Amino acid sequence: KMNVESFNLDHTKVKAPYVRLAGVTKGANGDVIHKYDIRFKQPNKDHMEMPALHSLEHLMAELIRNHHQTVVDLSPMGCQTGFYLTVLNHDNYEEILDTIEKTLKDVLEADEVPACNEVQCGWAASHSLEGAKELAREMLAKRNEWHEVFA
Amino acid sequence: KMNVESFNLDHTKVKAPYVRLAGVTKGANGDVIHKYDIRFKQPNKDHMEMPALHSLEHLMAELIRNHHQTVVDLSPMGCQTGFYLTVLNHDNYEEILDTIEKTLKDVLEADEVPACNEVQCGWAASHSLEGAKELAREMLAKRNEWHEVFA
Ligand SMILES: N[C@@H](CCSC[C@H]1O[C@@H](O)[C@H](O)[C@@H]1O)C(=O)O
Ligand SMILES: N[C@@H](CCSC[C@H]1O[C@@H](O)[C@H](O)[C@@H]1O)C(=O)O
Repeated sequence: KMNVESFNLDHTKVKAPYVRLAGVTKGANGDVIHKYDIRFKQPNKDHMEMPALHSLEHLMAELIRNHHQTVVDLSPMGCQTGFYLTVLNHDNYEEILDTIEKTLKDVLEADEVPACNEVQCGWAASHSLEGAKELAREMLAKRNEWHEVFA
Repeated sequence: KMNVESFNLDHTKVKAPYVRLAGVTKGANGDVIHKYDIRFKQPNKDHMEMPALHSLEHLMAELIRNHHQTVVDLSPMGCQTGFYLTVLNHDNYEEILDTIEKTLKDVLEADEVPACNEVQCGWAASHSLEGAKELAREMLAKRNEWHEVFA
């Protein structure tokens, strides 16, 4: 068994898009961290292009914090098929789905990518607002399937 | 002021490589989460190629957990210049630097990328062990500069 949770997941059996609880970490004092695997693209069949992924990262990381008070991190996967969302002391799966839905609806309304300039970003040239909106649109179109992880 | 911590960082003033404390989150019960910005490449001047970044993600995420017991997450940045490392109840910066150093030395010794197949990975074709080793080598060569964030 490997250290990384996703290395023990059979990626040939999942059906994207989905949102999956990928891990629960309990602190010694009683706080609890939940990590979710938000999978936009089917593993080894499709992936997100980097400018679109990067803009979606900026948009989601900024906008989700307007809907949720204890987001610890929102980061992409190196495989470019999804993101990990880490939250503190919130174990309600359905509320997480609603939070992601509200965030992606905000993405569709955005007029610009937040912080896409050389002062606020590590690679300001690598962005696509339209690409990010297309990813959000595709994901929202299958909102009723997010809870189904396996085919 | 923006929600995302790094959107309030002046990326024109930093000097990569570096390791920077990017945030501290306290749980209601007293547990504490520290998040570090591990910057491999100079923002807006250089970036990591995706196959190398993806392999380095697999290698570091798996190997760092052999050196540290409370890693919550290790994820890339969409700008491709670094990674975020999230740990629970560990506030010693120097020990974090040592943990990263040990992990990158393990990367140099690796014979293969862990989990780089279609069962265990979201995009098995997008990997480069040699690219990941080159990134680790460059980072280790400047070990004495990791604590200097600003030029
Ligand atoms: N995962 C973090 C930050 C997301 S935005 C990340 C961006 O910060 C910047 O340094 C880079 O341009 C990068 O793309 C979080 O959720 O806080
Ligand atoms: N950030 C996480 C996992 C890192 S490996 C991530 C990989 O899992 C797989 O689903 C994908 O191929 C992806 O590249 C962690 O630290 O646990």
